[in-house]
Order: sequence, then C-alpha cells, then structure tokens
Amino acid sequence: MIAIDFTHDPQRESWIDSANEAGTDFPIQNLPFTVFHTGDGDPRIGVGIGDQVLDLRYCAAQGLLDAALVEPAQRQVLNGLMSLEPARRVQLRQAISQWLHVDTSTSQAVLQEGLYPQDAVEFCLPCQIHDYTDFYASIFHATNVGSMFRPNNPLLPNYKHIPIGYHGRASSVVISGTDVVRPVGQKAPAEEGQDPTRSPAALLDYELEVGFYVAQGNPLGSTIPLELAEQHLFGMCLVNDWSARDLQKWEYQPLGPFLAKSFATTVSPWVVTMEALAPFRVPEYQRPDGDPQPLDYLSSPENSASGGVDIQLQVSLLSKQMREKSLPPQSLSQTRFTNMYWTIAQILTHHASNGCNLQPGDLMASGTVSGPERNERGSMLELTWNGDAANPTPGTDRTPLQLPTGEERKFLGDGDELILHGFCENEQYRRIGFGECRGTVQPAR
Amino acid sequence: MIAIDFTHDPQRESWIDSANEAGTDFPIQNLPFTVFHTGDGDPRIGVGIGDQVLDLRYCAAQGLLDAALVEPAQRQVLNGLMSLEPARRVQLRQAISQWLHVDTSTSQAVLQEGLYPQDAVEFCLPCQIHDYTDFYASIFHATNVGSMFRPNNPLLPNYKHIPIGYHGRASSVVISGTDVVRPVGQKAPAEEGQDPTRSPAALLDYELEVGFYVAQGNPLGSTIPLELAEQHLFGMCLVNDWSARDLQKWEYQPLGPFLAKSFATTVSPWVVTMEALAPFRVPEYQRPDGDPQPLDYLSSPENSASGGVDIQLQVSLLSKQMREKSLPPQSLSQTRFTNMYWTIAQILTHHASNGCNLQPGDLMASGTVSGPERNERGSMLELTWNGDAANPTPGTDRTPLQLPTGEERKFLGDGDELILHGFCENEQYRRIGFGECRGTVQPAR
Repeated sequence: MIAIDFTHDPQRESWIDSANEAGTDFPIQNLPFTVFHTGDGDPRIGVGIGDQVLDLRYCAAQGLLDAALVEPAQRQVLNGLMSLEPARRVQLRQAISQWLHVDTSTSQAVLQEGLYPQDAVEFCLPCQIHDYTDFYASIFHATNVGSMFRPNNPLLPNYKHIPIGYHGRASSVVISGTDVVRPVGQKAPAEEGQDPTRSPAALLDYELEVGFYVAQGNPLGSTIPLELAEQHLFGMCLVNDWSARDLQKWEYQPLGPFLAKSFATTVSPWVVTMEALAPFRVPEYQRPDGDPQPLDYLSSPENSASGGVDIQLQVSLLSKQMREKSLPPQSLSQTRFTNMYWTIAQILTHHASNGCNLQPGDLMASGTVSGPERNERGSMLELTWNGDAANPTPGTDRTPLQLPTGEERKFLGDGDELILHGFCENEQYRRIGFGECRGTVQPAR
Repeated sequence: MIAIDFTHDPQRESWIDSANEAGTDFPIQNLPFTVFHTGDGDPRIGVGIGDQVLDLRYCAAQGLLDAALVEPAQRQVLNGLMSLEPARRVQLRQAISQWLHVDTSTSQAVLQEGLYPQDAVEFCLPCQIHDYTDFYASIFHATNVGSMFRPNNPLLPNYKHIPIGYHGRASSVVISGTDVVRPVGQKAPAEEGQDPTRSPAALLDYELEVGFYVAQGNPLGSTIPLELAEQHLFGMCLVNDWSARDLQKWEYQPLGPFLAKSFATTVSPWVVTMEALAPFRVPEYQRPDGDPQPLDYLSSPENSASGGVDIQLQVSLLSKQMREKSLPPQSLSQTRFTNMYWTIAQILTHHASNGCNLQPGDLMASGTVSGPERNERGSMLELTWNGDAANPTPGTDRTPLQLPTGEERKFLGDGDELILHGFCENEQYRRIGFGECRGTVQPAR
C-alpha cells in the first residue's frame, strides 16, 4: 500500500488560491492527471489544481522534471507515465506538489505560464485504452438485477467466488461531455414465435461505476499475485456504462452484453492517482456471516485491511426542459464505493489469474455501484425497478422518477444529461474529488 | 463486390518459380499481406509469393509505389493500408501482381533484393488490433454446444435473428507459432454448497475459426448499411480461439466467456485480401424452410447472392509423442466456411448497427466453424461430445480421439500442437491458401 507522506498533509496549501477553497475537488493533496488541449487539438498531459490545469509537457520543456520522466510526460496520452515504476510515480507526485506549494522554490512566474483555466480547455481520453473490461462487483446491484429477471434465483452460484466480468468495447469509450446517440437495435418479439423488431432503444439507462487504469502490466502467461496487485494500479475515475436494457434482454444469452453496451461508455477526464487515494483506503467489504471466503489467490491480509476505497458517489439528471428553465440537476442517488463485494486489487488479480496480459492504460470498471438502500441504487433500472408497474414485486418502489418540471422518467429521455460526481472525505485528511462525468442523450439517428 | 480482373487470371504465372507450383498456398493470384522481421525485431509489411515474402517497405523505398501508398506501406503494421479507400487497395494489388508477373517491366534484380524465404523470417501480428470480437455464427456449432448443456433447448430464440457475438480480449491475440500456456482457473464445486476449486484447466480445447480484419471504420454513432459492408472488409485469416471449457462453465453466467478465452487467441500470419477472395464468393448459407428471414438491415440481394466465402478448412493435431516419433499431424476435422449461418457482411453490419465505431485493424472472428457431419466439427468439445462418456446422448459418438501413438484425447494435452489450414479452390480459378495457424500447449505455470 502507498505510504502517506507530506503530499497528504491536510494543512498543506498552494499558491493557487482556488486550490485552497473549501469544497474544491482539486486541492494540492489531489493532483489528478488528465489530457487536454487548448482548442488547437494538440493534446498534452495536465495536472488538476484548484480551477486550473497545469501543462506537464510545458513543465518538462522547462527542465523541471527528472530526465527519466521527460519523455513520458511529453506524450499525448498517460500510458508512458502509467508504465513507470511505482516509486517514480511517487517521485513525480512529490515534485508537482512542491512546485505548487505556497513555499515553492520553483519560479511561480514560470509555472504560471503552464496554467490554463479548466473551463477554457477541452479534455481528451487520458490514455490509449487497449482493452476495457467491465465487472459486476456490487452484490446489491447483482441482487437487484437478478431479482427482476430471476426472482427465484437472483444471485448465481459463482457470484460470491468470482469477480464476474466481461470484455467491453474499447473503441466506444468517450470522454465526459461527448454526446451519446440513442442506439437502434433488435428487441425481443412481443409474443413467442413472432419476429423481433428493430427500433430506437426505449429502455436507455445509465450505470454509475468507478473505473481504474492499469499501471504496469504483465506478460502473457504470467499472473499478478494479490500481494502485488496494488503496484499495478495507476488511478481511478468515474464511468457511466450506458446500457440499452431492451436490446440487452434480447441479445445477451448465451454470450453476454454486446450492442446493448458498445454504443458508448463515458469516462471522467480526471484520473485520481492511487497515491492521492492513500488516505481513503479502508477495509474490504465486510461479507455477511455465512458467505464463503474467497479462494486463496483472492485473499491477503493487506487486501482485507485496506483493499477498499471510500469514494462517495452521486448521480444526477438534468432534462432538456429543466435546462431550458435553468433548473439545477436533480439528484437520483448517492452511494459509496465501499459497497463493492470485490476490491479493485481482487478484480485485477483475477483478471490476470489465467495468464491474461494486462497493459498500461487498460481500463477496468467496477460495474454499477449500488448500496443496500433505495437511494443508493446506481441505475434507472433499479430505481424504477425496470419501470414495470405491471409486474410488481413485493417491497419494491416502482414509482417513476418525478422531475421538477412535472416530467416522469422510467428510463432516459432524449436531451437528458447524466452527471456523475465522486469524492473522498474523512475527518483526518483534506477532501479530494473526481470532478464530473457528463453525457447527454441525443435522439436516435 | 470486388470485380474479377487480370490479377485473378488462372493462367497468370510469376517469375518466382515456387509461386507456380501446384499446391502452393501463395500463387500470384493470392498475394496475402503479412508483417515480418528478419531476426532483428524490425517489423515491416510483406506480401506472400510462393515460398518467399516480398518486403513492401523495401519496394516503397525503391520508388515502386504511388506517393499515397508510400507512408502506409512503410509502417510496422497493416493499419495504414487497411484504412485506404477500396480502390487504392485494388490499385496496390494490381501493381504488386505486375511486379511479380513473368513479363514484368520492373527489374527482377531490384525486386529480388526485397525477397526473403518464408522459412527464414519471423512473423508478427499483422496489425494493431484495437478491438477483437468473437461471434457464434455456425448454427451447427451452436446446436452441438447447446445440445450438451441445454438438451431441451439447444438453440436460443435469438439465434436465427442476431449474429450472436461478444467482445474478446485484444491483448492476448498472438501470432501463429506462439506457445500457449495452459491457464489455471476456478472450476465449479463438485457438489452444490461446496467451494469451487482452482487448478490448471483440464478441458482445454481449440476452436477452428475464420477471422476478418476491418478496413475503413465508421464514426461513433453512425452505422454501416449492409450494401456498403463489403467495402469495410480488408481480408481474412485463420483463428484458433483456445478455450478452457471447465473454466468457462463456471464463470460464464450471466455475462459471457471471460478468463476461459482471454489467455490466448492465435491468428495466422497471412491476411488474404477480399480482392484475392473475389473468385470464391458464393451465395449465403441456404436457410432451411421455415427459418425466419433476417430483418431488413441484415438483408440485401448482393449478400444473398455472394455474401458467402467458400473456404475449406482443416485442423490437425501433433502430440509430443508423435513429434518425437516424427509422425505427421493427425487430421481431426475438415469443414467449409459456407456452413456459417451469417455472412461476414451481416456480422460487420450488425456490429455497427447500434452506432458502435469500428476501426481499421479490428478483428472479428466467426466463432467455431462446424458443419453438419461428425468430421466437420470444429472443436474437441464437439468431436468427443464433451468427453463425457458418463452422460451419453443418443446418436452421438463419444469415443475419445485415438492418436497413432496409442494416446487418447478427450481434450488437449500438454505438448499438443494444433495446426489449422484453409484454402479456396474451384474449377475456374487458381487455388489460393491461408497458410498455417499453429500453437503448442505448454504446461500450466
């Protein structure tokens, strides 16, 4: 696990005033990475600080970085930094923290030249994502979804033994702010024996997820022991795994979700490093009595003690009508990443446990983060219980969502914007945030 | 569909004698692309001709190519050539065919400098595969597998309406000749309520598949009408989709195959272009009376008339003992790609039908190619009917495979080498081949 050092000191302040304001996602204790351009389409790596982004390519050109860091810091993607030794990443974080500290010995005038207001830049995908894998690691989500479709058998026998996952589509991972076109696809026949139909997805949904990027990878045929898994984690982000439930229902047997997912997956622009998250590591999810212990390759004292990450998550919706009336987004749910049945280290170790080679920049997503309460459900499917008032299940609340405009939602409408937030907060350390992950639904073409 | 032109003339001969020999996979009518190096790890694009490979980077440096082709021809991967306009690809093929023709006006002495014996070079992955998708397009395979695990319901209701597919793992796609390490993984508990176990896969299998590479892609949110699908196909190859059946059985519900597949997928080094395959296009699979017609977006007169590709396929096995006794590989099965329920154009169009963006170099594989007869089954699972003599199904032959050494196989043993072959042959045109797709199973680590 990464050591707590001076960069985490909650008293530490920056000479950039906005980084010291209460409630900022990006105090000097955070320093998330991103990739951005300033309107010219020339992407470079940046670091978030207050309401600014510091151009790391510029800093490298100014001679501020160690020789070994210059080349990876000047790329258009984070993959080079991701593939560094963990100690090098700590070194880079400490250097940046020193530049931005109130008592910096580095010229503020020089650094000032490399700062851009965040609201004046365009964000890009932070890295080349070679492979994207989506998991299913919230037992509350898996139980909710299973209850709708297999009421007598909500959780399959493998769930408590395997971090269930599937390969996702890497090409359609897009950066926050990218519009999402409602997909068209096949839907199950209305009655058995009839032909399926094809039309725009009616049951379009979001999934509130947390993603992590792989740092150093492993060669094909080798594995990553759980004890070493944390060294292979670079940082975390927010993920919206847009899902077309009607397409999924018809296509997904026997080989899993495909076109119901591959039309878009949105990631947040900021990658919050594992170094920044060190003060927010918590014990793994406490499995209820009677649940099986994971097999040996998924068990370690360190994972039990600090494999969790205490991220608080929020999702909200802004409809077209709400936007036109200048209403604020409506909160749909709030949950915590501590609700996950599997830790990110277990997920990574399992992924490589068959000899599968991981590569720097691979993206793994948690699956929908849902908690035990109704207001902790991370998808519309769960919030409106499949929007299916005709098929009630005892104890579930199937009222459609009411928006302040009088609109109702069982699933997403055209023009709806979904906004994910995440942050870490505890009594001892400075609050850090993940920024936003946004996307607006456009009508089917 | 691509026009037949002078490059397909069966009388056409090359000044490279080996290209004119009966039975060669690589006559002047073929000209498949590959990527190779000569022991120095410096990959370049090549073209197969007889028992030689022509270095296209060298040809470009000699000024033999049009200006627009020089840069893509000099890359270390085929992605640049893949993204060319279809007319440019035809132009390139015609130029290469002219260089190698007996009556070439290009200096043979110059070209000779760019030739390497195929058995003296190392082959590399032919392109950067951004995303890999595996389908399930043989109804015979789907019915066989379904019969074993769902005897009363072998074919799910969606099968005849959707080209079923799933996202595969791109990072573990390897070039022919790469050893395959037997994966270790979780297996279902012996009895309900017990814990699963973890050990090397016992039911390791191959799957005989055909792959195709995407040429030009499509932007996210757009689709590719079936009428235009052929323009987005670059060429075809052989694929061995190694599968760990015991891992798959335990992990695959509800989200599909994952670690049972992601330990290795082998592709052949040669990419046989759609131009070379033009003389072997045949009508799509003749669906039995009573089967539903595909929905409109998967129907076109051209697809019906010539959407099929008549590739003959063979798979053989060479065990360690057989190799030590210098015995030849034993044939396991022979089948034809005309057995596929869905055409490659339908597969591509379906993949993009939700707005998913395809990219040059994306690999799509057919799924196991099995035909109606026992000796046309494309996997060990089907040949030995799950190796499961304790659970007989009427009418199935569950005798283990007998090897000439007296060894028996229900699934693959350590040291077993699998060899796939493919070729196209008809009465009117010159036979062309796909070369080999090989891989040897190494013991679990």
